Amino acid sequence: MLEQMGKAAKQASWQLAVLSTAKKNQVLAVMADMLEARSEEILQANEQDMAQARATGMSEALLDRLLLTPARLAAIANDVRQVCRLSDPVGHVLDGNLLDSGLKLERRRVPLGVIGVIYEARPNVTIDVASLCLKTGNAVILRGGKETHHTNQATVKVIQQALEQCGLPAAAVQAIESPDRELVNELLRMDRYVDMLIPRGGAGLHKLCREQSTIPVITGGIGVCHIYVDDSVDYDKALTVIENAKIQRPSACNSVETLLVNRTIANSFLPALSARMAAVGVTLHASDNAMPLLQEGSAKVVAVAAKDYDDEWLSLDLNVTLVDDIDQAIDHIRTHGTSHSDAILTRSLSNAEYFVRAVDSSAVYVNASTRFTDGGQFGLGAEVAVSTQKLHARGPMGLDALTTYKWIGYGDDLVRS
Amino acid sequence: MLEQMGKAAKQASWQLAVLSTAKKNQVLAVMADMLEARSEEILQANEQDMAQARATGMSEALLDRLLLTPARLAAIANDVRQVCRLSDPVGHVLDGNLLDSGLKLERRRVPLGVIGVIYEARPNVTIDVASLCLKTGNAVILRGGKETHHTNQATVKVIQQALEQCGLPAAAVQAIESPDRELVNELLRMDRYVDMLIPRGGAGLHKLCREQSTIPVITGGIGVCHIYVDDSVDYDKALTVIENAKIQRPSACNSVETLLVNRTIANSFLPALSARMAAVGVTLHASDNAMPLLQEGSAKVVAVAAKDYDDEWLSLDLNVTLVDDIDQAIDHIRTHGTSHSDAILTRSLSNAEYFVRAVDSSAVYVNASTRFTDGGQFGLGAEVAVSTQKLHARGPMGLDALTTYKWIGYGDDLVRS
Repeated sequence: MLEQMGKAAKQASWQLAVLSTAKKNQVLAVMADMLEARSEEILQANEQDMAQARATGMSEALLDRLLLTPARLAAIANDVRQVCRLSDPVGHVLDGNLLDSGLKLERRRVPLGVIGVIYEARPNVTIDVASLCLKTGNAVILRGGKETHHTNQATVKVIQQALEQCGLPAAAVQAIESPDRELVNELLRMDRYVDMLIPRGGAGLHKLCREQSTIPVITGGIGVCHIYVDDSVDYDKALTVIENAKIQRPSACNSVETLLVNRTIANSFLPALSARMAAVGVTLHASDNAMPLLQEGSAKVVAVAAKDYDDEWLSLDLNVTLVDDIDQAIDHIRTHGTSHSDAILTRSLSNAEYFVRAVDSSAVYVNASTRFTDGGQFGLGAEVAVSTQKLHARGPMGLDALTTYKWIGYGDDLVRS
Repeated sequence: MLEQMGKAAKQASWQLAVLSTAKKNQVLAVMADMLEARSEEILQANEQDMAQARATGMSEALLDRLLLTPARLAAIANDVRQVCRLSDPVGHVLDGNLLDSGLKLERRRVPLGVIGVIYEARPNVTIDVASLCLKTGNAVILRGGKETHHTNQATVKVIQQALEQCGLPAAAVQAIESPDRELVNELLRMDRYVDMLIPRGGAGLHKLCREQSTIPVITGGIGVCHIYVDDSVDYDKALTVIENAKIQRPSACNSVETLLVNRTIANSFLPALSARMAAVGVTLHASDNAMPLLQEGSAKVVAVAAKDYDDEWLSLDLNVTLVDDIDQAIDHIRTHGTSHSDAILTRSLSNAEYFVRAVDSSAVYVNASTRFTDGGQFGLGAEVAVSTQKLHARGPMGLDALTTYKWIGYGDDLVRS
């Protein structure tokens, strides 16, 4: 069955690849309108998923993530209209030259072809991913979580009808509906038809894809992020950045997990940190050398365990340890980081540039919160995923990351000599 | 042992990443000089490999590929000096912006980190790859063929001494010396240390890497290339391009394997083709519909087998078949091509652009030989590999393809609101 889907997606991708921007925007507009017009059947399907989820005892937080309401669906439809307004990267000429041989060469952006996306229980991802893929002329094969089965089924049906209404093949957006897990393994080996795989989920899913997939995979999403507090900071401003990086959205991958504090300022900075974190309910996980000074403030302080440095808290918890200097901070980040987002707080220009060059992360910040790592914040218009690998795309991925390029050589019956 | 090598390579990569271009060029210059000064020991090691290869009955063509001479070694040293002259992509700012939030954002090119290269019996690849990786600030782990074992060992020793003489870690360029094949499998799973894997070899090696590697792989090198002869060509010029694409270097992956001829011109074009190919010793593998007309010329003509369309000849053999129109030609290319290099010969501007948009290959040509797909021909200065996948780099890969980018955000104690 997957073989069939792959073949159909590949064929659809050829049609999508040559569509004009106007045509693609038209499809997106029809899609948005139909999502609203047919909201009732999508919401009914979502009811079914919600009922099942409640029956299996899903947590309130996850239930809320799964829930669609008329307002949420309208917001999602508006997001699709927003995608119409983004500039279309396809067709853009990256560079070109008239070579000595006489060959007129250019590199032109083209769609990747077929994109596979594996994700969990967020019903908006289906529409989100479909619209970004269509905008860039890619076909997509979706594999959502079983918790959103009915919602996804109803949504994809509406999307496919929008496609057909515009004279395009329904196979441009397909979903693997069977919950059979074996199908995921099969999808991972469909390199004949699928050009790129994006897993949107936890570390386990990323590992599975990295190990089993014969299709190039974009991995990411795990952020053990650090802030190094240099000896020259303004305490109050530094604490404001740290607070933002920790509490603005603790469950996000770009929130800070470990604070590395220059030993020189420990005596005065750590008690101030403790007081500030107490006020916002953050529990500090302290190294031996930081513990007594943090206890001078009013925050809850516990001993950090070695493994805490290697994991995301995703909660109001923060590791704190002292370092002798910037090199030790960089060393800690190299050992425990996930190449996601790391920051230095400093007044020293030379330390700032040293840190920026030495820390090998997708995003490196000077005097700014790690929370900025985000497609919207970076002005990309859309975020397909956040990559922490180094090939193809790094950090927040915008529409460009759904394209590749093609070399085009024009000659006048030209031969190589 | 590989774990150790990986760790050492990663550490070396941090040092390399922050080197100035001048320093990197100095290392390359020392390396080139030392390769010449120490040529005797490298040539002696090569003698050993040659003797063993002769004893195992290696073919003359492969023996020649394996052989180093003083002249060849001098040429290789000069290639290293040539790499000094290439512009260093590291540090280049791709784009940047001052965002509404106040964040000053830029994307800066940085080295990938550690690159793994698996290759066969060409002793020049060791030096070639090492110099390109060093130029871009990457560490490299090399795995050469067992046929070049002694040569590679001697070469890497000289490179490592050049590194140390310049105050850099020898681990920046390491070779896996044991011929144990299990080590390749181990290398393929070292995603903790190796950032990109480049297999330089046949289809089997590429398949192994795609299936087993947990490291992102650049695959490519297999070229089933096509030329579509439209109904509006100038016969003589078209034949000149076809001849060039077939015979200039038949063993290259960018040589043409299949000719798709528009049925409209078959009566006159095929006999002319047959005469021209006879003159250069090309055997034609004809479809049923092309056979009688080709037999009117003087070339050796045999029946094409279905599987011939899916393989590289790499020899003076060419498949010839008729198509009804440009769409049938495109369809054939989609079915049998390897997304390497494909060309259209036409006088029609609209057919040319239609073909360019519809054919999803790394390089698409209009009225030019497929033989142009090459880093040197494309003006890239160097060629790391030719990719036929779509992620990261497509077609000939220059120095840029050995880099990634890093987002750098500067703030004034900036928080996300």
